[in-house]
This record gives sequence, structure tokens and C-alpha cells, in this order.
Amino acid sequence: MIKPTPLSGFPEWLPGQQIAEQRVIDIIRSVYELHGFSRLETSAVERVSILAAKGEINKEIYGLGRLQGTPGRWEMALHFDLTVPLARYVAQNSGAVNFPFKRWQIQKVWRGERPQEGRFREFYQADIDVIGDGELPLSFDAELPAVIHEIFQKLGIRAQININNRKVLLGYYQSLGLDETKSADVLREVDKIDKIGADKVREALTKMEIDSQTADKCLALCSLKGAPQEVLAKAKELGTDNEIFQKGLEELAFVADELSHIGSENLIFNLGIVRGLDYYTGTIYETMLPDYPSLGSICSGGRYENLASQFINRKLPGVGISIGLSRLISHLFAQNALDCSRQTPTQVLISWPSEELRPACRAIAAALREQGIPTEIFHEVAALKKQIRYADRKGIPFMLFPHQYTEEAQLVEVKDLKTGEQVQLPLLSWIESQQK
Amino acid sequence: MIKPTPLSGFPEWLPGQQIAEQRVIDIIRSVYELHGFSRLETSAVERVSILAAKGEINKEIYGLGRLQGTPGRWEMALHFDLTVPLARYVAQNSGAVNFPFKRWQIQKVWRGERPQEGRFREFYQADIDVIGDGELPLSFDAELPAVIHEIFQKLGIRAQININNRKVLLGYYQSLGLDETKSADVLREVDKIDKIGADKVREALTKMEIDSQTADKCLALCSLKGAPQEVLAKAKELGTDNEIFQKGLEELAFVADELSHIGSENLIFNLGIVRGLDYYTGTIYETMLPDYPSLGSICSGGRYENLASQFINRKLPGVGISIGLSRLISHLFAQNALDCSRQTPTQVLISWPSEELRPACRAIAAALREQGIPTEIFHEVAALKKQIRYADRKGIPFMLFPHQYTEEAQLVEVKDLKTGEQVQLPLLSWIESQQK
Repeated sequence: MIKPTPLSGFPEWLPGQQIAEQRVIDIIRSVYELHGFSRLETSAVERVSILAAKGEINKEIYGLGRLQGTPGRWEMALHFDLTVPLARYVAQNSGAVNFPFKRWQIQKVWRGERPQEGRFREFYQADIDVIGDGELPLSFDAELPAVIHEIFQKLGIRAQININNRKVLLGYYQSLGLDETKSADVLREVDKIDKIGADKVREALTKMEIDSQTADKCLALCSLKGAPQEVLAKAKELGTDNEIFQKGLEELAFVADELSHIGSENLIFNLGIVRGLDYYTGTIYETMLPDYPSLGSICSGGRYENLASQFINRKLPGVGISIGLSRLISHLFAQNALDCSRQTPTQVLISWPSEELRPACRAIAAALREQGIPTEIFHEVAALKKQIRYADRKGIPFMLFPHQYTEEAQLVEVKDLKTGEQVQLPLLSWIESQQK
Repeated sequence: MIKPTPLSGFPEWLPGQQIAEQRVIDIIRSVYELHGFSRLETSAVERVSILAAKGEINKEIYGLGRLQGTPGRWEMALHFDLTVPLARYVAQNSGAVNFPFKRWQIQKVWRGERPQEGRFREFYQADIDVIGDGELPLSFDAELPAVIHEIFQKLGIRAQININNRKVLLGYYQSLGLDETKSADVLREVDKIDKIGADKVREALTKMEIDSQTADKCLALCSLKGAPQEVLAKAKELGTDNEIFQKGLEELAFVADELSHIGSENLIFNLGIVRGLDYYTGTIYETMLPDYPSLGSICSGGRYENLASQFINRKLPGVGISIGLSRLISHLFAQNALDCSRQTPTQVLISWPSEELRPACRAIAAALREQGIPTEIFHEVAALKKQIRYADRKGIPFMLFPHQYTEEAQLVEVKDLKTGEQVQLPLLSWIESQQK
């Protein structure tokens, strides 16, 4: 006998959790689609030459080889994110894609990392990106946080979307006389402010031979955090007419205006977020869940200049955001924050009391399913106790008894297994009561 | 620049096809859930020791290794079907699973086969199985074809479900005096009847030193094919009181009765289907699509004795069926049999004619999305022609003009982009007309 030991870093959920995870995925997808994002699914496998195009995280990539093939050079590997596949897909199908291309992509990705709490080797990401051909309107920068806000509202989870714009930071550093290299260095230090605190950042800036007045100014800027209009006002007070800085503030002001429907408890402008990657060029996002602070940012992204420059000679600017779905869900499971009591989609279990009632059971089941109500008939003639135990264990909410059912009257008895309440009524009346 | 050359055997669909594929998946899943099958998703990666438990198709399995790791023995690999992962999952979580366990599983699987038309290296399967603890009622054998029938009805594709029962064949061979080994040999030959014809099968049987009378009887049995009641009657006429044979006929009779709502053009009993694997012990299924004969069986399965005997010391009989989803979809794409005209879920594109109308656009979009209607506002103020071209290219059915919109009257103009028809009416009236 072979012992089925779990593989560390490859999470699998229990039966009740499976349904809870699907519910979260369905909500995310439905909101993405309500905003006109269309499905993209790419193959899990890419050429190594594609994945290694930037040469950075090679060591985490899982290569593929046939178990009985001759080991040689790796040619194929599993994707480690959904952005490289998107870029490759768009480059490959650039003639078939209509721009701006709005796509959602909810797929697993694989990374050969050392597994630790909340970090997996196989996990789901849920991404949206909008890709323009040559240029991309700013309205999309405002749409992404609106979509994310709607998702967390529907999930019933408080989410705080932090927004910044790299142009504000870089334009300001330019106005302080810092050159590009120095600006990048400063960004890297500022990015650590949440972890190491303002004092340590100041220390680091001083070590770069930035004078203390300039360091203070950098810190003053990245400390601005709060309601969008307030942050914008304070940033303006910092007073510089640097063009890039001003452009950044204009973009932020547009985003603030578009998102005025989101309360300031859920939307803050935070000039201290940087996003590690150099990739981003304008608006950037990080989303925290106040009720789950240890999660950190669970959803981040931003505006970038050119999606697919390594594959195609065509400027494709974009803006994207990604929900760390598996990390989110596993945290919610650990906190008992998702209802996992249902082990089946079945809403109604029809009791099967005797062979004679089989036609009645079948007719009732067909009527319920036709109305979109997931239904099971108990799978054999059995003692009532056994049938109820099955419903209880699987978390089926209703049990239906067909004894009274005739084609004419269509009377049924329905028992609510939570409250114990039992009613007798025509089948159609009960269906209608469920659909309200 | 890196050329993004496609990987052969790893299919990816064009934007319009992506949505069509999702529609098919959604229909399959919804019918599975209407019958109370609950979601299972297992990790794509398994221990090699698990996948190789039966030692058969090792050479097709893709092993995983870190690109920069030291190549050594394969420990992990991608799953090549959904049955082994199911067995492993049930064995591993046998305490958390409630039996009978009804699960659907729609996931990609990977096989390092030589790619050819309709055969992929990465492809979707859509499986359901019911697993019992110790025993499993026969009603499930009848439920699976009912589910499959409902799916193809909803897909609008004619499907012919072929059903047989291994007990009928094996019991009959026993009554003819064939021992187990010989029975298995006969099964293997009969399995080829569709490919090589009855004459060749008779030849093969003769070579096994089966006398010509016995061979004729074997062939007579496996030639029975047609409406369930007819086939049952003819099988009975073959006249043997072998117990296993009788038990098989009884099981078939129950299944026929349960499936009497399916017309005989869609449901046939075919005593000539065998299903290659030794695995199956009772009811077996194969489903052909009469309009796409070259596809062969697109959905097959059957009843088996013991799911997880290699992992756990507990008898877990089951019955399962699997739709070859990617093979089906790629064939339908090739035949232009799926509507791929929509490149977006967006139902309504709201024209954005001027900056002043921005609040009206936002209010209308919010109202539409609240009613579940996927909506985009055009992403910038632009010439009407440009906005209509965007809708046309993406296959968006309706364009909405907000010029008349005030909070009180809520008048909008809506243009049907297919018919050219344009109406002016209150937003809510239009929404209602769409929801009928």
C-alpha cells in the first residue's frame, strides 16, 4: 500500500472548503465580467526561453521533463505568474486581439519556493489587466480599484485600497535635484518604511549622501497618507512645479474623482507605497484588509509602460491588478472567516421512502432542477433516519417528502433542517418562496 | 527579441473562443451541481510514487524539477488524469469525506504524448464520480447518463449514450464455459469490433481455440444494439440462467427504467461496448455525437469495484464518467459549431460623448451592473464612430447614449448594434426588457 502523504506547499482544501473557495472565485469572476473583462486562459506550460526572458527568478521555476525521457536541457516549464503568459499571448495573437484588451485570468501558478505559512508552491492568482495599443486612457487606472472595491464588498470583507502614483515620487525627487539612479535608490529605501520605520529610512538616505533637508523632504512626501482630497492638498503644498510631479498629481486627482463613491475608510491615497518592481510607471495599488492585518497587501498592481517589449516591436502600455487568491483564502480558512458548512451544492434532498414513490420522486426532482435548484433524491429506499443523517452531514438545508405528491395536487412536505420547521404546500409555491 | 512560437500540443484559444469554452464549462458544471455533485479541485502536482502506483503510463508523465536545481530522481509530476488524484484525495481525507461522495472535477491534465489532431499534451477533463463506503446503490449508475444527457441537451448537441454492463458479457462467457482468462481475452477482441469488424473478431476467437458455435454466440451477444427494452428482450432470448448474466440484465433493466425519459435516439443499449480498461466491473458508458462521428466516444466511464485499494485498506466502490472537454471543444471550433462572435462579456457599451456627461455615464453603468448586466463605459471622450467601432469589433450587442439622462427621468437611447434599431426609454424599462 502506498501512503498518500501531503506535498508541502501544494494546498488542497477539505470538502466544505472546496465549495467556499469556488464561491469566492465566482464572485471575483462575476465582478470582473460586470466590468467587461473577458476570460483568458493560457496554457500552464511555457517555453523556458519565454519565462526566462527577464532572467530574474529562474531558480523558482519548475521545469518539465518526461519521467522516462532522457534528461537534457529544460525546454518547457510551468508559468510562475500570469503577466508573462499574458504578454506572450498578446504578442502571439496581436492580430486577433482588439485593443484596449481587457482580460481576466484566474489560474494557478507555480513557484519552487521554500514553503512557509501563506506561501505556496502552487497557488491561484486572479488578475485583470487592460492593454492598450500605443496608448491607454487614464480611465482604466480608476476602473481597477473600483472593481476591487466591488469584489471585497460582495465578499463581505473590509478592504482598504492604497493608491499612489510613481510620477509624484519621481517628479518630486527630480525637483530636489536627485538624478535617476539616486531616485531609484531612494525609492528602494522608501519602500521599506512600513517594515523598518522612518528613522531607519532617513539613516539610509543619509548614507547615500543625501543632505538632511532633502531627506526630510523625501520623508515628508512619503508620509502623506489619508483621504484622497486631503493628501492631494498637502502634496500640492509641498510646492514644486516639476512637470512629472504635477502630472502625477493630476492623474491622482482624476482617479480620486472617479472613485468618489468609495468612502475614505476604504480608499486612501498613500504616497508611501512604492511597489518593489521597477516595472510600474504611474498609478500603483496595494490593498490591505483591516480585519486581517497580518496578511499584508493581498491585491496589488499598477500602470506600466510596455507589456510585451521582449516579444514584439509594438508599444503596449497597460494597467493591471492581481488578487493573491490562495493566500487570501487560506488565511480566511485559518481564521474561520468563510462558511464551510456545506459539503454539497444540493439545496433539497428528496426522501425516497418506497419503491412505489419512485416516479413521484423523479417528477419532483425534475421540476426542482428545471428551476435551477440543485436536488438529490436519496440514493436508495432506506430508513428515514439514515436519509436525514446524510442530509445533515452534507449540510443540505431542506428535506422534501413526496408521500402526498400526485400529478394533480403536487403537494409536498418540506422540512427546514436548520429550524426543524415543516410545511405542507404545492411544490410550485415552495419553489417560488425559494426564489424570492 | 524572443519569438513567442506556439508549443505544439498545448492548445490556446483566440479571444472569442475563450468565452465559448467558458460557456461550455459553465453549462457542464451547472448540470453537475444541479444533481448534487460538489466541487473537487486537487493540486496539479502529485508525488511520482502516487502516479506510478499502477506503473502503466509512466512514459507519458511529466516530471517536475527546479530549473536551477540539481537533476536527480523525479519526486513530483503533473497528474495525467483526475481519477488517481481522486483516489489519493479520498484516501488522504477519508475522515472528512461523507459517503456516498459525489464530486465533480473540471481540471487540466497533462500527458507527454506525441501531439496529433485532437490529442493534446495539456487538456481539460470534466469528470464526475460517486464513491461509496463499502457499497454503492445502483441508482447512481442510472444518474450519470441522465446528467450527461442533460448536459448535451443544454449544449444543443445531439448525443448518443451507449450503455452496457460487463456482468452481462462475463456471465454469458462463463455460461459458455470460458474461464476468467479466456473471458478477458474475448473481451479484448470484442472491444475491437467497431474498428476491425465482426469477421476479424470471429477469426481471432477461433485462433484462441474457441469453437465456432461459441464464437457465434459471443458475436451474437455483442451485436445486440438498440432501444433498451428491445436489447434486453433479445438478450433474455439468448437464454442462460447464469447468475452473473442475470444480475447484469437486472441492473440494465433498472437503468433503462430510470432513463425512460430519454428517447431511444439518444440512449441505446449496446452490448458490444467493452471499454478497454479491466478496471470496470458493471455498467459501462460510451457517448458518441452523431453529428460529429469522427470524434468517437467523447464521454465514457463506468462502475468499478474499488477506487483506492492501492492507498487505503477500505472498500470504496464507485461509478464515474468523464467528458473529454478539450477534445470536444477543439473539434467544435474546427467545425465552426460554437458561437465565437463575442470577445467580451459586455452587454452594453455606454457612449461617453463629453466630459459633462461623465456623471450620467457613471450612474447608468452602476444601475446596469447592479442588475447583473455587464457594462462598459467607453474609456475616453471620443468621436462616436470610434466608440461604435470598438463595440462592433468586440461583438458588444448594445450601445447606450446618455444624452437625455437626468436623475429624474432616467431617459436613455439604446441601439441594437445587430439590427440597427434604436429606442428611447427609461433605463429601468430597458433593463426589464432584457431580463425577460
